[in-house]
Amino acid sequence: MNAKVISIGDELLIGQIVNSNASFIAEKLYSIGVQVQRIVTISDTEKALLDELKESSKKFDITVITGGLGPTHDDLTKPILLKYFKDKTVLNKKVLNKIKSLFKARNQVMPEVNVSQAMMPSKSEVIWNNNGTAPGIWIRKNKKIYIALPGVPYEMKPMITDFILPKLRNYSQKKGEYYLLSKTLLTTGISESDLFEKMGDINKIIGTHKLAFLPSSEIVRLRIDIKSKSKKDAISDYKKIEKRIKEKAGEYIFGKEDEKIEEVLGKELKKKNKTLSVAESCTGGLISAKIVDIPGSSDYYLGGVCSYSNDAKKKLLGVKNNSLKKFGAVSEQVAIEMAKGVREKFKSDFAISTTGIAGPTGGSKSKPVGLVYIGYSDKNKSYANKYFFGDTRMKVISRATITALNLLKKELENIK
Amino acid sequence: MNAKVISIGDELLIGQIVNSNASFIAEKLYSIGVQVQRIVTISDTEKALLDELKESSKKFDITVITGGLGPTHDDLTKPILLKYFKDKTVLNKKVLNKIKSLFKARNQVMPEVNVSQAMMPSKSEVIWNNNGTAPGIWIRKNKKIYIALPGVPYEMKPMITDFILPKLRNYSQKKGEYYLLSKTLLTTGISESDLFEKMGDINKIIGTHKLAFLPSSEIVRLRIDIKSKSKKDAISDYKKIEKRIKEKAGEYIFGKEDEKIEEVLGKELKKKNKTLSVAESCTGGLISAKIVDIPGSSDYYLGGVCSYSNDAKKKLLGVKNNSLKKFGAVSEQVAIEMAKGVREKFKSDFAISTTGIAGPTGGSKSKPVGLVYIGYSDKNKSYANKYFFGDTRMKVISRATITALNLLKKELENIK
Repeated sequence: MNAKVISIGDELLIGQIVNSNASFIAEKLYSIGVQVQRIVTISDTEKALLDELKESSKKFDITVITGGLGPTHDDLTKPILLKYFKDKTVLNKKVLNKIKSLFKARNQVMPEVNVSQAMMPSKSEVIWNNNGTAPGIWIRKNKKIYIALPGVPYEMKPMITDFILPKLRNYSQKKGEYYLLSKTLLTTGISESDLFEKMGDINKIIGTHKLAFLPSSEIVRLRIDIKSKSKKDAISDYKKIEKRIKEKAGEYIFGKEDEKIEEVLGKELKKKNKTLSVAESCTGGLISAKIVDIPGSSDYYLGGVCSYSNDAKKKLLGVKNNSLKKFGAVSEQVAIEMAKGVREKFKSDFAISTTGIAGPTGGSKSKPVGLVYIGYSDKNKSYANKYFFGDTRMKVISRATITALNLLKKELENIK
Repeated sequence: MNAKVISIGDELLIGQIVNSNASFIAEKLYSIGVQVQRIVTISDTEKALLDELKESSKKFDITVITGGLGPTHDDLTKPILLKYFKDKTVLNKKVLNKIKSLFKARNQVMPEVNVSQAMMPSKSEVIWNNNGTAPGIWIRKNKKIYIALPGVPYEMKPMITDFILPKLRNYSQKKGEYYLLSKTLLTTGISESDLFEKMGDINKIIGTHKLAFLPSSEIVRLRIDIKSKSKKDAISDYKKIEKRIKEKAGEYIFGKEDEKIEEVLGKELKKKNKTLSVAESCTGGLISAKIVDIPGSSDYYLGGVCSYSNDAKKKLLGVKNNSLKKFGAVSEQVAIEMAKGVREKFKSDFAISTTGIAGPTGGSKSKPVGLVYIGYSDKNKSYANKYFFGDTRMKVISRATITALNLLKKELENIK
């Protein structure tokens, strides 16, 4: 089954609000095998919505509309549905009682204007709203389903998950359609185009399924979309594809789905009962902030030093004056001394460090903007690697951060 | 002038990504008087995009397409534009050199597949992309404008603000329409509803113009939309409104437009030639990371310590064992000692500190999740304030961060 989502509201069209409703609905429908093929945002005018309903009746099995169900004059969704389906409203007493009880719970008397929300199209079913006064509307006509929901996210979301999904799943299974599965692998340390080249012949990897490359500033996500006859087939196909991708580019994969590298790393540290400290120069505290973002990080994270000045590098981390003079602050030697220094200071099992030139100024021919050394230290060894992370401050900082976390993760994997 | 935004990408249709690109574009176009009347999200298939282009040519002055401009097999935007406009590509050497230099800056050789990105439609103008390899495309036909941009936000956004807005403003002004001006004031430390009450009678402040309250987790933005006959009128009206708002809620305003508090603070420190250091516990490095985000921060930022463990608080910051025992790590006394300690360690003019309970665990009846002490220290005084920042880890960390930066900003304002 396919679907269209219609979002109504001027606040979306002037960019005041990001349309997270549509992605929520799309994700939930996709999870039960309903593919959203179109999302449209329109203003709350009669013509715009009527046009969309006409298109829906021709092309889409399911149409979900959000917004425009409030009690005021500018809420047009219900009147337009009535017009389009040549229907009238009838008072639904159960709905009216529900609305009254909501006001009572807030210790308020229901304003007269809200009675209009209990007037339901005669040919519709009610979608109960437990978190607000606007009930949803479910209309089935010529085997097409039309659903209207309020635009307020915390009202709309439970209506989707608790009422609409179970009901739609019934329809979808009766029609005996294919099983959809969407999985994501996360890579870092490689560009989209290099990754693409590494894959070789894409068809040999994915066959009739789909593979999408989704780059962001520091990672590239690989989304695999499987379309099979059954759940069993889908899982088996996915496993084969994952194996083939790992053969080609396994070293760049750090996680899957919405996982964050700091999360993967945290689990690993917890499991191995090890502790970590961090010394940051060019990343300025971002590595530390990411680690602390994860609940429970105090179990393995002891803390860090952001040594932005040379003085701090010497005093707080014990970097040698001689190393700073001879090699400069941005050097392999200083990165190593920072990692070692912070590990000794905090008495942690592992430490990572960064020193580099984030720009826009401070670069030179021999040490250009984007040059970063990432240091590593444990009780057996200390070293630093050299990287070039591009030309903008944001990119340098975020790539250095994720690369440092990934370097530590790879070291951890080798430790039993 | 009116506009349509077309977002391409299956990751949007399966709800994997929220369409923040479309709202960014809508907001920016609105700010120069171009009203987006339709936002559509479609899959990357030929038919879907061709249909949209047909509709655009009939109804919209401007069409902005994002996504599908990468170098891989599933990037279809350029081929479809060529087909629709019956055009061919020619190699643009300047673009090719730009792409090559991007790879060079990363110390990589350009993969052959990227040459395709320098092949531009012969009837198009290039929209330069300073942050990635996919140039944008600008096509003008029958007085309609068609713009194709990459879908990666940090590539797309500067292309809109630096290139497209100035160019479109020219067209819009030639058509002699009214002048729209949209300005934003940024507030922190006050809730949306309290701010609304402080304003009193909104009509007395804005007259026939518009004022929107836009809350996010740690700040509330006030957007003022002016619609006047001329630019001069618009600016004069705005100045009056800004003055009235500042009379009502000036103490909560920390900046305007897209300014960040760390940016405002950085300017102030630079101007006064003062230095800063930071001691963080519950904010885990986020204050430091925000400060370092600002180019040139090495002029005033000396560094920080993230003392996540008690041991680190004692050893690196000189917090007294007795204070930790008597008052606990999350206490006024420890916040003060952290701020003092880090200031002395780094020999900075100012220092701020945080210690609190970010959750989800670690809270108690007397010290619940959300409790945070923020410390301040300069050569004359040291103190700490107590706050409650809500119930989720993310909220506690981000509110504590912005409140600490704002506390320092207010102290700086009092120093001549």
